[in-house]
Amino acid sequence: MSDFITMAHGNGGAAMQKLISDYFVQAFDNPILAQGEDQARLDLRELMETGERLSFSTDSFVIDPIFFPGGNIGKLAVCGTANDVAVCGAIPKYLSCGFILEEGLALSELAQIIRSMAETCRKAGIQVVTGDTKVVQKGAVDKIFINTSGIGVIPSQLDWGMHRIAEGDKIIVSGTLGDHGATILNLRENLGIQTDLCSDCAVLTPLIELLRPIEGVKTVRDATRGGVNAVLHEFAAAARLGIQIEEEALPIRREVRGICELLGLEALNFANEGKLVIVAAAEKVEQILTVLHRHELGKDAAVIGEVTPTRKIYLKGVFGQKRLLDLPTNEPLPRIC
Amino acid sequence: MSDFITMAHGNGGAAMQKLISDYFVQAFDNPILAQGEDQARLDLRELMETGERLSFSTDSFVIDPIFFPGGNIGKLAVCGTANDVAVCGAIPKYLSCGFILEEGLALSELAQIIRSMAETCRKAGIQVVTGDTKVVQKGAVDKIFINTSGIGVIPSQLDWGMHRIAEGDKIIVSGTLGDHGATILNLRENLGIQTDLCSDCAVLTPLIELLRPIEGVKTVRDATRGGVNAVLHEFAAAARLGIQIEEEALPIRREVRGICELLGLEALNFANEGKLVIVAAAEKVEQILTVLHRHELGKDAAVIGEVTPTRKIYLKGVFGQKRLLDLPTNEPLPRIC
Repeated sequence: MSDFITMAHGNGGAAMQKLISDYFVQAFDNPILAQGEDQARLDLRELMETGERLSFSTDSFVIDPIFFPGGNIGKLAVCGTANDVAVCGAIPKYLSCGFILEEGLALSELAQIIRSMAETCRKAGIQVVTGDTKVVQKGAVDKIFINTSGIGVIPSQLDWGMHRIAEGDKIIVSGTLGDHGATILNLRENLGIQTDLCSDCAVLTPLIELLRPIEGVKTVRDATRGGVNAVLHEFAAAARLGIQIEEEALPIRREVRGICELLGLEALNFANEGKLVIVAAAEKVEQILTVLHRHELGKDAAVIGEVTPTRKIYLKGVFGQKRLLDLPTNEPLPRIC
Repeated sequence: MSDFITMAHGNGGAAMQKLISDYFVQAFDNPILAQGEDQARLDLRELMETGERLSFSTDSFVIDPIFFPGGNIGKLAVCGTANDVAVCGAIPKYLSCGFILEEGLALSELAQIIRSMAETCRKAGIQVVTGDTKVVQKGAVDKIFINTSGIGVIPSQLDWGMHRIAEGDKIIVSGTLGDHGATILNLRENLGIQTDLCSDCAVLTPLIELLRPIEGVKTVRDATRGGVNAVLHEFAAAARLGIQIEEEALPIRREVRGICELLGLEALNFANEGKLVIVAAAEKVEQILTVLHRHELGKDAAVIGEVTPTRKIYLKGVFGQKRLLDLPTNEPLPRIC
C-alpha cells in the first residue's frame, strides 16, 4: 500500500477493503462494526433500559488546519457530535463516521486522526458502529472532511429544551469562552502570538451527568460555531424573550482577550468545542455552579446573564452602558469546525 | 439574500439561520425538525412497535456531475442511505443531512437538490429530522457534498445477514446492471452516446417489503459503488465460500453493453443505485422472482449464479469458459456516488 491516499482507496475494490479493515475496523474495534454489513444493528431493548427517547444528531467537520493545539479534525468530529447528542440530557452511545479524503492525503495523517477518534470514543464510552469512505481527486476537497452522526438515549422524565426558558432564568457558561476559535485563528492567520492556548475540544457528557439530577436546569447547548452569541440568539428567538449579559462576568482568558482586541473581534462570537451554555431557574444557580466547579471541565463555570422580558439581547459593560448584541452578518472565522 | 452561497451562510449567524429556515426546514417540514434543537428526539416506544433492533447507516455523496439523467446528488443521498438502512430488512424512518457547500454555489441549484430530497423522502415515508450546513471557500470542495445517516427498525424475527449464506444458495439481482455507472460515465466522459439511458436511483423499500415474508431470503445488499462484483466478493469472503456467475444470465441493457465494450470495462463493476443482490435458498427462487417481477422496480429481476464450495468467484461465459472475477484494483469510475 502506498503512503498516500489514491483514487483506488475509494473505488469499492480491494484497496478500499484493505483501508477499511487495516485502519478503520482495527482502530474502532467493536463487534457491531466487525459484522461488516452495510448498516449497524443496534439492540432497541438495550437502549430502552435508559430511556424512552432517542437523541439523533449529525455534524460535518471541515476545519482548517486539520491538526491544532488541543486536537485534530478527528477528535473534534467525535466531540462535536457527542456533545450535540448529549445536550438534551442524553447519553451518547453510537457514532457513524463518513470520511471524504483528498487523493494524496498522507496515510500517516489519516492514521493519526483515526487514532484520536478511537481514543476519544473509548474515553467517552462511545462506539463507532458504521462508516463510509469516499476519495475525490486532488483539488476536489481540502485534505479531509469528516461527518459524524450520533445516537444516544434521553433518560426518562428529562425534559430539557428551549420551550422551558422563562423570564428571570439565569445564563451559565461552563468555562472560559472562545479558546477554540482563538487557537485556530492564531494558528491560521499567523498572528504570531506566543501562547500555550489550546482548543477546549472535549466530550462534555461528564458535565451533563452532573446536571441531569438538578431539577431547575431548563435547557443546555454547546456553544460551537457562532459562539455563545449564536446560542443566545436561538434561545431568545425560541422563547420570544430577551437576554442581558454582563460583560464583567464573562470568563475569558487573557490570551483570548488579546487576540480579540488585536483583531477587533468579539469573544462571544468565537467558537468553543467544550463549553456548555445552560439556562436554569435562578434558585438553582448556586447548586449548579457548585457541581460544575468540582469537575475539571467546569472549573471556570460562571453566571453571565439572565433572561429578560424585552425581546433584545444586550451586553452590559463594566461601566453600566448597554449595547445590542447582534448576530454577526459577515464571516470572521470560516472553517472553524 | 444573494443568489449564491456566501461564506456568511456557514458562520452560525443570521444568513445561516435564514438559509436553514427558508430552504431546509421549509422543504423537509416535520414537527421533529421544526423544534430547532441541536438534535432530533425520537420516540423509542414508537420504534419498538415494529421491531427490537435499529438499523443505522451513513453515506457521503460526492458525485460529479451533481445533476444527471434520472436524478441529482440530493435524490441519490436519500436513496443511497435509505437502501443501506433497508437491506437488512429494516423500514427506513429517519434521516440526518449534512451539507458541505462551496462558496459561489447557485442557491437555485441548492433549492432544486433539496426539493428532490424532500420529494424522495415523502414518497418513501422518511423524515429528515436533523441536519448541519457547512460552507467552505471556493476551491475547498467541488460544489456540494452531502452526508446522510439513516435510522430504521428491523422487524422482529428477521435475520438477514452474510452469516446465513450457504453452498447451493442462488444469487438474484433485482434488475438491469450498471445503469447508474454507465449514465454518469457517458455524461462525464462526453462519450457522445445518444441514449435515453438514465440512473436507476431509487428507494428500494417496496422490494424489501415484498421479500420480507419469504423465509428463504438469506441476505440482501444494494450494489452501489464497486457494482455487483464488490458485493459478491464481500459475500464470498464473509461466507468463506465461492460464487459462480453465468454471463448469459446477466440482465444488462444494450446501451450499457455498448459503453462497456467501447471502454473495455465490466458492467459487473459498474455502480447501481436501485438494484438489490439477493442470496436465497434455491427452492425459494421461483417465489422470489414472481413477487419481484410484479413490481416496476423488480421487473427485470434474474437469477445470475450460485454459491459454490471453492473460495473463488468465477464468471462462466456463453461458451462455457470460466474466468476469475477479481476486484478491480485501479479506479475506473471515481465520484460515481
